[in-house]
Amino acid sequence: MPVIDLNADLGEGFGVWRLGDDDAMLGIVSSANVACGFHAGDPAGLLQVCRSAAERGVRIGAQVSYRDLAGFGRRFIDVAAEDLVADLVYQIGALQAIARAAGSSVSYVKPHGALYNTIVDHAEQGAAVAEAVRMVDAKLPVLGMAGSAFFDEASRRGLRTVAEAFADRAYDPTGRLVSRREPGAVLHDPATVAQRVVTMVTTGQVTAIDGTQISVGVESVCVHGDSPGAVQIAAAVRDHLKTAGAEIRAFC
Amino acid sequence: MPVIDLNADLGEGFGVWRLGDDDAMLGIVSSANVACGFHAGDPAGLLQVCRSAAERGVRIGAQVSYRDLAGFGRRFIDVAAEDLVADLVYQIGALQAIARAAGSSVSYVKPHGALYNTIVDHAEQGAAVAEAVRMVDAKLPVLGMAGSAFFDEASRRGLRTVAEAFADRAYDPTGRLVSRREPGAVLHDPATVAQRVVTMVTTGQVTAIDGTQISVGVESVCVHGDSPGAVQIAAAVRDHLKTAGAEIRAFC
Amino acid sequence: MPVIDLNADLGEGFGVWRLGDDDAMLGIVSSANVACGFHAGDPAGLLQVCRSAAERGVRIGAQVSYRDLAGFGRRFIDVAAEDLVADLVYQIGALQAIARAAGSSVSYVKPHGALYNTIVDHAEQGAAVAEAVRMVDAKLPVLGMAGSAFFDEASRRGLRTVAEAFADRAYDPTGRLVSRREPGAVLHDPATVAQRVVTMVTTGQVTAIDGTQISVGVESVCVHGDSPGAVQIAAAVRDHLKTAGAEIRAFC
Amino acid sequence: MPVIDLNADLGEGFGVWRLGDDDAMLGIVSSANVACGFHAGDPAGLLQVCRSAAERGVRIGAQVSYRDLAGFGRRFIDVAAEDLVADLVYQIGALQAIARAAGSSVSYVKPHGALYNTIVDHAEQGAAVAEAVRMVDAKLPVLGMAGSAFFDEASRRGLRTVAEAFADRAYDPTGRLVSRREPGAVLHDPATVAQRVVTMVTTGQVTAIDGTQISVGVESVCVHGDSPGAVQIAAAVRDHLKTAGAEIRAFC
Repeated sequence: MPVIDLNADLGEGFGVWRLGDDDAMLGIVSSANVACGFHAGDPAGLLQVCRSAAERGVRIGAQVSYRDLAGFGRRFIDVAAEDLVADLVYQIGALQAIARAAGSSVSYVKPHGALYNTIVDHAEQGAAVAEAVRMVDAKLPVLGMAGSAFFDEASRRGLRTVAEAFADRAYDPTGRLVSRREPGAVLHDPATVAQRVVTMVTTGQVTAIDGTQISVGVESVCVHGDSPGAVQIAAAVRDHLKTAGAEIRAFC
Repeated sequence: MPVIDLNADLGEGFGVWRLGDDDAMLGIVSSANVACGFHAGDPAGLLQVCRSAAERGVRIGAQVSYRDLAGFGRRFIDVAAEDLVADLVYQIGALQAIARAAGSSVSYVKPHGALYNTIVDHAEQGAAVAEAVRMVDAKLPVLGMAGSAFFDEASRRGLRTVAEAFADRAYDPTGRLVSRREPGAVLHDPATVAQRVVTMVTTGQVTAIDGTQISVGVESVCVHGDSPGAVQIAAAVRDHLKTAGAEIRAFC
Repeated sequence: MPVIDLNADLGEGFGVWRLGDDDAMLGIVSSANVACGFHAGDPAGLLQVCRSAAERGVRIGAQVSYRDLAGFGRRFIDVAAEDLVADLVYQIGALQAIARAAGSSVSYVKPHGALYNTIVDHAEQGAAVAEAVRMVDAKLPVLGMAGSAFFDEASRRGLRTVAEAFADRAYDPTGRLVSRREPGAVLHDPATVAQRVVTMVTTGQVTAIDGTQISVGVESVCVHGDSPGAVQIAAAVRDHLKTAGAEIRAFC
Repeated sequence: MPVIDLNADLGEGFGVWRLGDDDAMLGIVSSANVACGFHAGDPAGLLQVCRSAAERGVRIGAQVSYRDLAGFGRRFIDVAAEDLVADLVYQIGALQAIARAAGSSVSYVKPHGALYNTIVDHAEQGAAVAEAVRMVDAKLPVLGMAGSAFFDEASRRGLRTVAEAFADRAYDPTGRLVSRREPGAVLHDPATVAQRVVTMVTTGQVTAIDGTQISVGVESVCVHGDSPGAVQIAAAVRDHLKTAGAEIRAFC
């Protein structure tokens, strides 16, 4: 029976503003990538989502970001490596205290948005993220993209790397995500997405956008909850996995 | 031989902006109240000052604040208690990670600016500060004003309270600080200030602004470093204390 | 035939976060209190709502606030008067340029949230708001609460004051709003609220929470759009006013 | 007698933090590039520097930036063009109101820091800056680098472009600035810098870092005031220009 983790971004409101349906998602995923205040997440909101995650047995990861509330962390910032290291140490530590106050802890780290995408190739920033995790706690796994510069840097520092696949995103034949600007980059049909995830998890294969079969090593599957449609897809993924006999369990 | 702690605010720049002479002050004080990013303190700057403090054997405290970079935390904000609790947990946790990355740790908590002044009397916010510290680590002492609502709330939660005196501020006959708006509220002559601190530390007495002698229980003395004159006063305080046979040592 | 203005808060998202249904409200109101970036409102979002307002012939007001994104401007901040003046001049000017770029202009100023409530009684901050408006353009009317310290200060500076009533809030016998913490402070039934507004507008009277009739001079009625229920109430207010023969028209 | 403008960055503090000696620089330059709040500049500080500039007859320009207080606008941000346009309209409008309240006005626009450097080559962001200026007021000149993509976009929109030279920066043979990371990129001797500026202004020529003579069309010279040494250089530039018979006068 295959075992797989489901992860999603949570705690991404700020003050009066909410984003996504955190409660619904906590009933679906095994790992919650909780914002850390730099792209989203006011402390009171973070404490609340960490409490809910703790109650429901969902693991908490620190979803670290560039400092960019106005851009939701979705814009590359050419921040110096030493500043980025400190920014991430700060964020992880902040969420650690929040998670502990909620009766849980930070179990892993996942970069967010433009930082996530940048460090697929940007070795200097990838090294900064890995170094920040190592400085906080070298036993914290990092969640990200297999084959990324970030994973190289993380492995070099002895960090455990956990490869994730994206439930609703098309892959190119080299295993990279197809850019959102391309047609067909995002899949929208719940049953299609769910079946695709079952195939990924049970066979380690996924059909790329050009029809070729590619291998994806995957320990976790990323689902989204920022729209009613997204929650429905995430629920379908969970249901299909269970029907296929998979156990949904946090990787850590 | 009396033992006394000297504390000062450090790490209060932000990005390109610097404030005060952190290096000079680290040669004078035994405890550094390091900003946590809400009134001042970018993570890279905080990491740097924590590293310097660690190298020089100066203890690090979390100087927590209202969220108010534009006002440097000097303006009362009527924040709800539950939001304030989370804001402070976040700040303490962030500095804990930074301090650990610097090879040290957060040894105590001291509120900053308007928050400090508010919780002398404001029981609800005082309770929020005490609760935040308890939630992070009930063994962390809090540094503040003897007789404050904050200390009542901290004691009720089993926190150790450490009373501080102000080297360069006048007291009224009840033991409260004279408002900065009043004439004579701030003392400027290094020798006068230094001698006054020696008297406080060795006798537990200080002359109030009206000439009466009052008792001040004091485990720590707060000095400032935000101007050349301030550093000079702090150095004079240290020198006079040593000459008087006092040992300057962190309270924790 | 009575003429009345309907006003509502718009443009209160920030970056990825949205709040309320701006499009629906622009079909209902004659005046849009547009956020200015200090409690809400990123420039691109503000430009968009100003363009929509311009297209639909809705007047734009500058909804100025304390600097408090995390608290949505709902928390009193004890900001010095001279800082508050400059903060408001900055915000009004920013929205003026945005509104002009959208083919419209800023026609009035309305304080937001805690600032609005504070300057009902706080003469110093009320004077700061009035002074800021005067410095930008003494011909800009201010929208607010009749009998407030703010209106006194505005009148003293020759500003036109426009008194507003609240469609869904209970009044006490003195004409002040009943605190939201009290039972019955907020009315929820669309037909009740709408009929009450019609009475206000046609008779200048409203039934206070204790049953007494009080006079309310009202040139504008404030409605909300931050929930589906709120939009429904606002639409009912508009429909009942039209049925009663009132003309809904901006006061400026 | 040649006529030349001297410009410098001013108003670049934030809240309690100050940067540079604005008063000294206002006695030296003819044009003040005043920060607009996104990389530096709290409204009260901006109002103060605009008042001083107005009193001393120094022109005010809007020094617009990426939204990046923590990085002082010195880090490239991959912001979408339509967001950048709105961000800049907002900033220019804010400073216009501040400048008017100070009895002056915004006479030109100059991009700051990483934005300045980016739009030398980045046509999309350069177009966004030019478009923002055009939307606010097509009669506002822009100050920047001759030959830049930004100037192309500005000219295309009918904006007046004003080319500036840098007093203390080395040029490569193509007329671009030598990167600060290269040796010799910044000149430090006041007399050398001042003589070089006199040559630029009187002959339109400057010696590049490799010894070749290059032409620099220059209507304004940028000097700095962020250190005591910088002020001294700026004063030397002014003195040498006057001795050489040049008139220092704003370009607008």
